[in-house]
Amino acid sequence: MRVSLIRYTPEPELAIAAAARLCYAEIGASQLVEKLTPTQVERLLRQVISSGHHSVLEHASFTFAVDGISRATSHQLVRHRLASFSQQSQRYVSYKSPDYVVPPTVAADADLKQIFDQAVLAAFEQYRKLIEAGILAEDARYLLPNATTTRLAMTMNARELMHVCSIRLCTRAQWEIRELFERVRDEVTKVAPIIGSALQIKCITLGYCDERETCGIRPLREDIL
Amino acid sequence: MRVSLIRYTPEPELAIAAAARLCYAEIGASQLVEKLTPTQVERLLRQVISSGHHSVLEHASFTFAVDGISRATSHQLVRHRLASFSQQSQRYVSYKSPDYVVPPTVAADADLKQIFDQAVLAAFEQYRKLIEAGILAEDARYLLPNATTTRLAMTMNARELMHVCSIRLCTRAQWEIRELFERVRDEVTKVAPIIGSALQIKCITLGYCDERETCGIRPLREDIL
Amino acid sequence: MRVSLIRYTPEPELAIAAAARLCYAEIGASQLVEKLTPTQVERLLRQVISSGHHSVLEHASFTFAVDGISRATSHQLVRHRLASFSQQSQRYVSYKSPDYVVPPTVAADADLKQIFDQAVLAAFEQYRKLIEAGILAEDARYLLPNATTTRLAMTMNARELMHVCSIRLCTRAQWEIRELFERVRDEVTKVAPIIGSALQIKCITLGYCDERETCGIRPLREDIL
Amino acid sequence: MRVSLIRYTPEPELAIAAAARLCYAEIGASQLVEKLTPTQVERLLRQVISSGHHSVLEHASFTFAVDGISRATSHQLVRHRLASFSQQSQRYVSYKSPDYVVPPTVAADADLKQIFDQAVLAAFEQYRKLIEAGILAEDARYLLPNATTTRLAMTMNARELMHVCSIRLCTRAQWEIRELFERVRDEVTKVAPIIGSALQIKCITLGYCDERETCGIRPLREDIL
Repeated sequence: MRVSLIRYTPEPELAIAAAARLCYAEIGASQLVEKLTPTQVERLLRQVISSGHHSVLEHASFTFAVDGISRATSHQLVRHRLASFSQQSQRYVSYKSPDYVVPPTVAADADLKQIFDQAVLAAFEQYRKLIEAGILAEDARYLLPNATTTRLAMTMNARELMHVCSIRLCTRAQWEIRELFERVRDEVTKVAPIIGSALQIKCITLGYCDERETCGIRPLREDIL
Repeated sequence: MRVSLIRYTPEPELAIAAAARLCYAEIGASQLVEKLTPTQVERLLRQVISSGHHSVLEHASFTFAVDGISRATSHQLVRHRLASFSQQSQRYVSYKSPDYVVPPTVAADADLKQIFDQAVLAAFEQYRKLIEAGILAEDARYLLPNATTTRLAMTMNARELMHVCSIRLCTRAQWEIRELFERVRDEVTKVAPIIGSALQIKCITLGYCDERETCGIRPLREDIL
Repeated sequence: MRVSLIRYTPEPELAIAAAARLCYAEIGASQLVEKLTPTQVERLLRQVISSGHHSVLEHASFTFAVDGISRATSHQLVRHRLASFSQQSQRYVSYKSPDYVVPPTVAADADLKQIFDQAVLAAFEQYRKLIEAGILAEDARYLLPNATTTRLAMTMNARELMHVCSIRLCTRAQWEIRELFERVRDEVTKVAPIIGSALQIKCITLGYCDERETCGIRPLREDIL
Repeated sequence: MRVSLIRYTPEPELAIAAAARLCYAEIGASQLVEKLTPTQVERLLRQVISSGHHSVLEHASFTFAVDGISRATSHQLVRHRLASFSQQSQRYVSYKSPDYVVPPTVAADADLKQIFDQAVLAAFEQYRKLIEAGILAEDARYLLPNATTTRLAMTMNARELMHVCSIRLCTRAQWEIRELFERVRDEVTKVAPIIGSALQIKCITLGYCDERETCGIRPLREDIL
C-alpha cells in the first residue's frame, strides 16, 4: 500500500482560521488571510476542532494517490459519500499479472499463505483464459478475487477526514482500511499538524467508547457518565 | 437478481407537485396537497421534468430491496453518493455455500461456463478452508470473487433516480447494472407512472448522444446541432 | 408558525430496522420487513441510535409544510445541506399585505413593539411604492425586512433530523429555529416515537456540553471526564 | 461587490487530468502528475468536459472571499448544497452603519432611488434604536432589509462551479447573483483557463434552451431537435 498526498489547499490551516474568524468579524476573508498571525491561527483552529463547529474545516481539501489496496477495501472506502474518488477501472484495464493483498492473519501461517497464493493464482489463470477466449475484461473480472489490488485518487476536505478517521482508525475497523487512514493521517500531519492532530479515533474525541464493547482505549459511556 | 420496491413516499407525484406549486403560490404546502387535482399534478410534474428545475423531485423517496447482484456491480452501485445503502457485510456474514452471478457472455459458451463455475467453486472451497482454519470471515473473503452475490437496501429520491437511470440505462453501462436499473424503473413506474416515464437514458432526454461514439439510439451532438 | 408533517415513509421504524438487520442477516430486506416483530424493531432501533451507526436511519424520510417563519430563520434553515427545500419565491410572488414575525423580546415591551411594527409597515409601504412604479418584485423585495414571513416544504431523513435537532434544539440556537425544530420533533414523535425520542440536544446524547460555556443542562466536557 | 479567489488546489487542471487518466491507466496518480505534458492535460480536460464524465472535476477546489453582496443574494446562494459557506453572522455582529445594495432598476430612477435610500436608512435607524434599548442583535436584525450587505467565504469544486454557473449565468437568474458568478468565472479563468472556459450558461453547453421561453441566446429544444 502506498498513500501519498499529491495536492492540498495551500496553507490549509490559515484558510480555515480565516473562514472561522469571518463569521464574527467586521472585515472580509481576503483581509483575514493577510492579517492572522500563526498564534491566532492555532488558537482559532483548536477552538473550532474542540467546539464541534466543524463546517469551516470544509475550506481545506486534500487529494491522495492510493496504490495497492485490495478491492475489498476500496469497496468499503467508496461508501464515504462526502469525498471524491477516481478509481482504476476493472472494466477497461485488463490485467496481465496478478497483484494482490494477503491479510496478515493468513500471511502469518505458511500453510494458509500457500493455500491463499495458489487460490489467487488459480483464479487469475482462469481470468486470463476467459480474456484469451475473447470475453471482455468487464465480464472476465467476475473471477477476480477481492484480494486484487486497485489504485485511486481520493479527495476529502478536513471535516470529512476528521469524520472518516474517527471511525476508520477505530480498532473495530478492518486492518487494511485502518492502515490506509493511518497513512492518510501521517501525510496530513506533515503539512497541517493541527489538523493532523484532530484525526483521531472517535473515542479519543468523545472521551468514551460508544460501541457495545470497548477495546480498552476508553471506557464505555455508561461506565464514565 | 430480485429488485422490489419496499417503501416509498405515499402519493409521491402529488407531494412533488405540491412542492413545485408552493414556490409560486400564496398558500402553503399542506393546503396544496389537499387542493391539487390529478390533472394539475400531471401538468406540474411534466413541466418540472422537462424544464430541468428538478430540486422538487427530491421530496419523494423510494426504498428498494436488491438481492442477488454481484459484488462487481455493488461496488459500481455504491459510487452514487446521493443515495443510502445498507449492504450485507462480508465481514460479519460467513458464507456456507457459493451464490454467484455468471455473465451472459460466459453463460452462452458451455466450455467457458464450465471454466467459470469451476473457478468460482475452487475459490469458495479455499475460502471455506481458511474459515475452518480459524481465519475470520473478514480476511477469508479476500479469496471470494467479484461474482459472489450480495444483497442490500437502497433508498434514492426521484431526482437522483432520474440522474442514475440516465447513465446506468445507457448501452455503455455494464449489463448487470443496466438490468438492475431497468427493474428499478419498472418498480417505480407501477406506483408513479409519470416519474417512471422520466427514468430514461440521458440521450433520450438530451436529444443527442454526448459520448464519443453513439450506439445509434440518438445521433452525436455535433451531427445534430 | 405552523409546522405539519405532510408525508413520510410508511412504517418508518420498521424500514430502518429491516435495513439495520440486513447487514448481518442471511435473508433480504423484503423478507425482513415481513418478519420483524414490533419488539425486535424497537430493540434494533435503540441499538442503532445509541451505537452511532446511523446510516440506516437514512431509509426513512419526512416531509414538512412550514408556514409563517421569518426570512431570518429560513436563511439559517437552508444552510442544512442534507435536506430538500422548496421555498416560496420573493422574486415571483408580489406581496399585497405585510405578514411578519415579531421577536418575543420585542413583543414583551409595548414601546419597542410599536417601533418594530411601524418600521415593518413603513418598509412594506415603500416596497409597494416601488412595485407600483413598475419595479419587479425581485428588486422591490430588497426593502423587505428579515421579519417578513415565508413558507416552504422541507424533507429530511431521520439521520439528518437527529443531526439538525442536536444543534437547533440547543439553547444557543435562536428562539425561532428552536421553536421550529421543537414542532418538527413533536410531529415526528406522533408517527415514529422511537425516532422522536432520539431528536435531542447534542448535550443529552453526548452526556456533556461541548460549547465553551454551558447553559446548565449538562456540565462541560472537562468537568465530567 | 468584491469577489477574490483566495485559495485553490495548486495546478488544478493537472490534478484533474491525472485523476481522469488514472481510471484507464496502469500507473498511479502520483506518477501521472509527474508525467502528463501540458498538451495531454489540455486534451484530457476537454474530453472530460465535453463527455459529461464530470466526477474527476471534483479533485480541484476553489475558495472565494465574497464581500458586499445583499442578503437577498446570499439566501439564494447558500441553497447550493455541494459547497461550503462561512458567512458573517447577523446574530453576533451588530452593525454601526448601514451598508446596502441598490438594484440597478431602482438606481436608474432618481425618485425611486431616494425612496429606496430613505427606506433603508429609516429601517437601520429603528434597528439601532432596538439595539440601544438592549435588544440583542439577533432579534433587532429582524428589521434589517434584504438589501443589507453580507460577506462570506465560499468553497466549491470545479464540477459544482460548472453546475452553478450553468444556471446562475443564465439570463433568467437575478442580476446580482449573475454578476457574482461572472466574477467567479473571471477569477477561475485567470488560474485555470480551460476550467474557466467550461463555466457557461446551460444553453451554451446543451446547444438549446430548456426553459419555457428563450432569451434568444439559443433556440428552444423543440425548435432545433
